[in-house]
Amino acid sequence: MGDDEALLSIVTSANVACGYHAGDPSVMRRVCERAAERGVMIGAQVGYRDLAGFGRRFIDVDPRELVNDVVYQIAALDGFARLAGTSVAYVKPHGALYNAIVTHEPQAAAVADAVRRYDPGLPVLGLPGSAWLRTAAEAGLTPVHEAFADRAYTPQGTLVSRREPGAVLHDPEEIVRRCLRMVTQGTVEAIDGSEVRLTVRSLCVHGDTPGAVNIARRLRKEFDAAGLSPRAFAVPAPRQER
Amino acid sequence: MGDDEALLSIVTSANVACGYHAGDPSVMRRVCERAAERGVMIGAQVGYRDLAGFGRRFIDVDPRELVNDVVYQIAALDGFARLAGTSVAYVKPHGALYNAIVTHEPQAAAVADAVRRYDPGLPVLGLPGSAWLRTAAEAGLTPVHEAFADRAYTPQGTLVSRREPGAVLHDPEEIVRRCLRMVTQGTVEAIDGSEVRLTVRSLCVHGDTPGAVNIARRLRKEFDAAGLSPRAFAVPAPRQER
Amino acid sequence: MGDDEALLSIVTSANVACGYHAGDPSVMRRVCERAAERGVMIGAQVGYRDLAGFGRRFIDVDPRELVNDVVYQIAALDGFARLAGTSVAYVKPHGALYNAIVTHEPQAAAVADAVRRYDPGLPVLGLPGSAWLRTAAEAGLTPVHEAFADRAYTPQGTLVSRREPGAVLHDPEEIVRRCLRMVTQGTVEAIDGSEVRLTVRSLCVHGDTPGAVNIARRLRKEFDAAGLSPRAFAVPAPRQER
Amino acid sequence: MGDDEALLSIVTSANVACGYHAGDPSVMRRVCERAAERGVMIGAQVGYRDLAGFGRRFIDVDPRELVNDVVYQIAALDGFARLAGTSVAYVKPHGALYNAIVTHEPQAAAVADAVRRYDPGLPVLGLPGSAWLRTAAEAGLTPVHEAFADRAYTPQGTLVSRREPGAVLHDPEEIVRRCLRMVTQGTVEAIDGSEVRLTVRSLCVHGDTPGAVNIARRLRKEFDAAGLSPRAFAVPAPRQER
Repeated sequence: MGDDEALLSIVTSANVACGYHAGDPSVMRRVCERAAERGVMIGAQVGYRDLAGFGRRFIDVDPRELVNDVVYQIAALDGFARLAGTSVAYVKPHGALYNAIVTHEPQAAAVADAVRRYDPGLPVLGLPGSAWLRTAAEAGLTPVHEAFADRAYTPQGTLVSRREPGAVLHDPEEIVRRCLRMVTQGTVEAIDGSEVRLTVRSLCVHGDTPGAVNIARRLRKEFDAAGLSPRAFAVPAPRQER
Repeated sequence: MGDDEALLSIVTSANVACGYHAGDPSVMRRVCERAAERGVMIGAQVGYRDLAGFGRRFIDVDPRELVNDVVYQIAALDGFARLAGTSVAYVKPHGALYNAIVTHEPQAAAVADAVRRYDPGLPVLGLPGSAWLRTAAEAGLTPVHEAFADRAYTPQGTLVSRREPGAVLHDPEEIVRRCLRMVTQGTVEAIDGSEVRLTVRSLCVHGDTPGAVNIARRLRKEFDAAGLSPRAFAVPAPRQER
Repeated sequence: MGDDEALLSIVTSANVACGYHAGDPSVMRRVCERAAERGVMIGAQVGYRDLAGFGRRFIDVDPRELVNDVVYQIAALDGFARLAGTSVAYVKPHGALYNAIVTHEPQAAAVADAVRRYDPGLPVLGLPGSAWLRTAAEAGLTPVHEAFADRAYTPQGTLVSRREPGAVLHDPEEIVRRCLRMVTQGTVEAIDGSEVRLTVRSLCVHGDTPGAVNIARRLRKEFDAAGLSPRAFAVPAPRQER
Repeated sequence: MGDDEALLSIVTSANVACGYHAGDPSVMRRVCERAAERGVMIGAQVGYRDLAGFGRRFIDVDPRELVNDVVYQIAALDGFARLAGTSVAYVKPHGALYNAIVTHEPQAAAVADAVRRYDPGLPVLGLPGSAWLRTAAEAGLTPVHEAFADRAYTPQGTLVSRREPGAVLHDPEEIVRRCLRMVTQGTVEAIDGSEVRLTVRSLCVHGDTPGAVNIARRLRKEFDAAGLSPRAFAVPAPRQER
């Protein structure tokens, strides 16, 4: 939790695993308490039911069951958020689910349906251009374009699979430079050197990346220096529909 | 689900497993929908995290973690109850947790703390005379005395362990006779033939007992014949504190 | 276990789940003991690590990990087989893994590699024409053609997915008629009415199909009447290589 | 795995978790391969089925099931040991199971029964004076007295619970000093300052203790300097009974 505490002092929102691919109740409660104390938004990081694989393996789960798996996870986390005096503020798919619903229409629609049923006011994070954000918008949800600080992109604007070499970036200088360019110019260099256009509203730093705190601190400082208000460049607040 | 559907037409409240010892999101959703349609109260049946053992084995979990395990389960089920237009109406521990907190003070206090933090208006079910109901009352919760239709009692008024012979009753006639006596006279015959005094506000029929539907139907009919209103003899409604 | 006991008196081989998609150590031990008493061959029914989904959902597990998942399952079951005085006699993939490796070359090769490393003398069961049986043969294993008594076939000779209507057959008369035709004529009627050629060395009856015991008994009787020796028409014995 | 590799160059035996409280097939295979390459004995570290609690919580599992849980774990690990050209060389209970069977007779007898059934030639490690080592000896197994380098002892010679302050030692100097005294003089200072007599044949360093590699290296060096042959002071080889 050392790094998590430090990160929570820098970020504006925290994706919290809900027990299906990672996370357990005591960790969920503690992170929610720490986030709430600092005014950091709590996002439900929903994933496949796969603790053994950390949610990084596509599972061909029936979309009718996936709806319920996602509701379960959001609701469980929301319990801890409410204990901490706040509530889940957005939903973000994790790992293989995140990647699958870039193109997998039935699973994308299932996740969107879950959020809509649980609370249609919740914004949802995802890859710009994904089936997920499109079906979410069609379901009346607020889609939020997200980029990854420490991941390589394909020329199509999707993430390079973690099974490929070069998928995860490690050089803090390069990461900060890429992020600034994504946010200020709306472009990122793909793994083949080509330029990809991206409109980004949220920027993800993985808490388990070595040096994550340092990277986040550098980013925050550069964004402040560039006059990017952390609240303007952040996940929007939920609409009140409950 | 065939028997579950039939049972939901007879009972006034349904204990729903929340995924830790049994239950999965799709079953939880379906039971909540069916219960809500019939005006049946939904109770969170919280247990140890032990799918392999169906929650029937005591686990010496740290009470500080048990609090959070219980909050997680209630919150997850509450998500499906709210999807169905209602909400969790009470909390009832399951299996080995139920039995442990008859005497295990720290775990009893942990479960009470979990309910209090999640929603202090929720009534809690348990064994009359248990540490659990006492600590729950001390935490400001509403304790509800429960009896079991198909379980044998020790002379001390606790349940005979399922590992002992004769722990589970099978004869519908005997079950109905015992239940009527418990409810109308406040006594039950213990496994050694002695008489035990019990004040009962809720009567539990296990949905997986063979003949459960028949037993429940008989009980409902006898109670109606005895002028026992199903709503008066039932778990009380939650206090509105949220 | 009632039906399992009865089935073990009829069949010549039993596929035993190894704890990853179903099965737990006590069930594994009991089935191994009962099978060994009756001279029934014990097959390792290996599957994806997915108790929640009963192994019926494709998981895109890294083939380098799948090798080890399969070794783990075979070895664990073999422990109980050896306690019962025998040993695992063949390997058969289950559910979604069975279906995936009809065409998924890397996963098929991974399962074949696992069996080869554990014991290259073990025969392997699978769908005729599958990538799995081809890669297994290439790895020096003995492929055994299998057919399903109670499942519908596509015109291509693969199984109709359980998510499709008509995937599972229920009429014992029809099941017995189809099986006799598969075994004696080498053909089966596909779901679209076309005729599919199949060479079959092992015939699978699912123990959890309602009426499974009756179906198996009928089949055994018809096979005996048709002069099909149960030992000739059965999984071949392992080659001694250990 | 960095520290694990380094540790395997120093120790004479390695306890490998078998997937019930920790460990997964790919880790099990890799550790077995590395251990076999270095001539390090592979021990089956068997525990309760509790990945969520890392096997550190007592579970009141039925002894008849515990037997099978333990066989399952030994057999699964043995599969990987045999892939690496060796076999499981001893059995050591982990965490809460280790502590429970210091006094819990039925569970102690269950674990002994599991080892005896799997391979009565396997030595078993445990706390000197425990019910576990006594029942193991009664079952014909070879009991091996074990001490812990980095754990505090009660005046009774049992381990101070991890929930108590001071249960885990961190100072490498103190750890090395205590271990030398345990091995050469047969005594250790208990947490209350009293002296406890211990006869020790195996000394356990936890791989996840910070500084474990350094502690192990220091111990090995001091033992060598004291003329303690690493093979004489080590788990004895299994008797050949298979």
